[in-house]
Amino acid sequence: MNPNLTTLTHVRDGKPTMVDVADKPETRRSAIAEAVVELGAEVMARFSNNEIQGPKGPVLQTAIIAATMAVKQTSTLIPFCHPLLLENCEVRIEATATGVRIHCEVCCTGKTGVEMEAMTGASAAALTIYDMTKAINKGVVIQSVRLLSKTGGKSGDYQCSP
Amino acid sequence: MNPNLTTLTHVRDGKPTMVDVADKPETRRSAIAEAVVELGAEVMARFSNNEIQGPKGPVLQTAIIAATMAVKQTSTLIPFCHPLLLENCEVRIEATATGVRIHCEVCCTGKTGVEMEAMTGASAAALTIYDMTKAINKGVVIQSVRLLSKTGGKSGDYQCSP
Amino acid sequence: MNPNLTTLTHVRDGKPTMVDVADKPETRRSAIAEAVVELGAEVMARFSNNEIQGPKGPVLQTAIIAATMAVKQTSTLIPFCHPLLLENCEVRIEATATGVRIHCEVCCTGKTGVEMEAMTGASAAALTIYDMTKAINKGVVIQSVRLLSKTGGKSGDYQCSP
Amino acid sequence: MNPNLTTLTHVRDGKPTMVDVADKPETRRSAIAEAVVELGAEVMARFSNNEIQGPKGPVLQTAIIAATMAVKQTSTLIPFCHPLLLENCEVRIEATATGVRIHCEVCCTGKTGVEMEAMTGASAAALTIYDMTKAINKGVVIQSVRLLSKTGGKSGDYQCSP
Amino acid sequence: MNPNLTTLTHVRDGKPTMVDVADKPETRRSAIAEAVVELGAEVMARFSNNEIQGPKGPVLQTAIIAATMAVKQTSTLIPFCHPLLLENCEVRIEATATGVRIHCEVCCTGKTGVEMEAMTGASAAALTIYDMTKAINKGVVIQSVRLLSKTGGKSGDYQCSP
Amino acid sequence: MNPNLTTLTHVRDGKPTMVDVADKPETRRSAIAEAVVELGAEVMARFSNNEIQGPKGPVLQTAIIAATMAVKQTSTLIPFCHPLLLENCEVRIEATATGVRIHCEVCCTGKTGVEMEAMTGASAAALTIYDMTKAINKGVVIQSVRLLSKTGGKSGDYQCSP
Repeated sequence: MNPNLTTLTHVRDGKPTMVDVADKPETRRSAIAEAVVELGAEVMARFSNNEIQGPKGPVLQTAIIAATMAVKQTSTLIPFCHPLLLENCEVRIEATATGVRIHCEVCCTGKTGVEMEAMTGASAAALTIYDMTKAINKGVVIQSVRLLSKTGGKSGDYQCSP
Repeated sequence: MNPNLTTLTHVRDGKPTMVDVADKPETRRSAIAEAVVELGAEVMARFSNNEIQGPKGPVLQTAIIAATMAVKQTSTLIPFCHPLLLENCEVRIEATATGVRIHCEVCCTGKTGVEMEAMTGASAAALTIYDMTKAINKGVVIQSVRLLSKTGGKSGDYQCSP
Repeated sequence: MNPNLTTLTHVRDGKPTMVDVADKPETRRSAIAEAVVELGAEVMARFSNNEIQGPKGPVLQTAIIAATMAVKQTSTLIPFCHPLLLENCEVRIEATATGVRIHCEVCCTGKTGVEMEAMTGASAAALTIYDMTKAINKGVVIQSVRLLSKTGGKSGDYQCSP
Repeated sequence: MNPNLTTLTHVRDGKPTMVDVADKPETRRSAIAEAVVELGAEVMARFSNNEIQGPKGPVLQTAIIAATMAVKQTSTLIPFCHPLLLENCEVRIEATATGVRIHCEVCCTGKTGVEMEAMTGASAAALTIYDMTKAINKGVVIQSVRLLSKTGGKSGDYQCSP
Repeated sequence: MNPNLTTLTHVRDGKPTMVDVADKPETRRSAIAEAVVELGAEVMARFSNNEIQGPKGPVLQTAIIAATMAVKQTSTLIPFCHPLLLENCEVRIEATATGVRIHCEVCCTGKTGVEMEAMTGASAAALTIYDMTKAINKGVVIQSVRLLSKTGGKSGDYQCSP
Repeated sequence: MNPNLTTLTHVRDGKPTMVDVADKPETRRSAIAEAVVELGAEVMARFSNNEIQGPKGPVLQTAIIAATMAVKQTSTLIPFCHPLLLENCEVRIEATATGVRIHCEVCCTGKTGVEMEAMTGASAAALTIYDMTKAINKGVVIQSVRLLSKTGGKSGDYQCSP
């Protein structure tokens, strides 16, 4: 077998598999993921002012709740993710010039990291915003779902390149 | 109230709400969404040849299955999505120069469209690929989750701009 | 067997069972359930003014979303409920002198009614309000979860007594 | 901001949020919630004698099972509940003069309490009893879902007022 | 490609896929599956007499409920199963000389059959009986989960060979 | 009460109940379950050669993924199972002369064992193989779902008799 492949952790003997974390220590973990949603001019016009009190309020609050609930479902959505006991999830959504930027931060104490939880939460918030604005603009695009940073675990801390 | 806001279908009296589809006719619906995943050089080197027999096989097949199962969970993930009876879901993943492009096509006969199902399936496939490659490269980025096209329903057919 | 028992529809030969709806026609159904939550003076003081923009906003909006999502999970929570295709769910929450009153209205076109969906949604909204106020007052009480009315189906319309 | 609002733990900057429990110690927790269901004379006549062997048997056993399973789903139903590892759940249902009284006791060792689990279990049992008796009496009312007591955690023990 | 493989309906171009049922007519479908559980002498001694009132009552009633709820989860458990609107599910459990025989009958009106629902329900009942008796005998074996018969659909009726 | 019944751990006072594990220590646990699927000659002919690259690839890989995801859902499927934090799940499927043999091995560190997780995973893999081959042969039979071995916990190690 090509030794380069040994780091593809979820493949063993040509078959997909879970990664065994039984012997890893429990440590504090955190991860922050980002999703950027390009809303287009027509949606942005409606979102221009009152972030919480105006129409943006319900949309963004629904997205925050959808993200938090999706974070808790990560191990049922991603086939080889381990279940874990989420200790915190904080979702922040801020306006950009052309849309919104979602930050989803997840923390737990466990044997494996929470990168997938943060990525799943950011994606769910973005999908919810798409759902609630698609009657105005079906061309809304979710861009750049990515990991911004993580802490904890054997692989150490990570910070995305700027 | 600002009359411009009447098209924000999921907000009524400043509160989020489901859209009433009781009086809509049942019609055949389809939607295709796309997600592009930028894998980076190190992952691409491992994915270079044997799409099915090699390491790419298990990763992409896992992504296809995750997408299909997520499509069926759409109405439990997106707060105001209606449940529907999925009739088909086809996920195709093709290599690009720098990663993979996921197409998720969903069909049903119902009172509301399947755009969210297609978007959710494409996102789940992308997240699964992130999960299975993140040990090699945490900087994998999901780009451009968007609706390519839809057919059926009162709002008619849609084709994304090129 | 006592013939009086023949109307206990979910019991057959001393064992619990689903009710067979295969031969019932599909008709339009609706149901409205109510839950009343007694919040106590300390919580009410915080809820006194700005229903949407103030602290009450996030609490009630979270309750609306929790109710909508629970309605869609009714058949997975109540053992012998049939799954159905929800067409509308509208949750309204209004202040009373001592707490809040939740109305959860559900509609579908199907072979069985949506009473349980409306009751489950009202309960979920009430539980969510309990969750978000219990740090202030653990003595919050959910009172009077009940069916206000239903329409459609062989058993006809129902209106609760005043 | 009004300092009185600082105890509304699930609201931060006007948005709903999870409570961070990462720094709390793991302790033994328990909670008991109660739900009272008023069944009405017609249902009570059928429930009069054989609590286990008669028709009441399947109804109450179904309610016990529904409660236990709902307790395990609490964090997927209540948006900002933390997942936890349930160690015990005991549901007892006793007849009253006019209906039934449900006790749902939940235990775990964790960083946050199990009040919501007990409240959710009691509600699910009550909803299941409603479902299985509604063919006889749609006017069945769930009354007084409330926390009877809790132990463990920083906020200490709690006993409801009589 | 080997033309013999064209009937492997869930594989297309070497990848797993859902079967497209969009063009199939809605018809009445039913399926009955069976699971046989060999309990061993020690468990059978406890199950010998009072099927409903004795200890067998709670075990079998729990199995019936678990089966009914699993039937409703079939499309979330089996990756390429279509969701459908279950109209009836009847689970019967009868004693054999050495264990129990479970019959799970499922009905719906839809575009695809309910064989998987019946098989999944029978398996869930069997697993639940294993769970509730394993403290006495870990050697309990689930045998012969199989389809007894089906009706409806293009492939016609099926009866298992004796 | 008959003292023989004291080992039926899930029955208390004639009602089904969860087993209290609060006072048990956390220990390393593992369990291996097996399911044997008899496929019949027509299916076996299609499965004869290329286990991974050929048509068997997608079927078996789908079964592996379904098993892994079902293992994580065990406590939502089996009414009195405790939730636990799965640390590893390895599914192996090997050809026999007349079908396939599934091994599902599950590990966790917790207060209760993982026998039900292993049994549920093996069953889900078998059901998935049934689903994907039933168009060729509805007479496929799942045989002999059983526990092969377990380690850890107060009841000690277990090895099935040969």
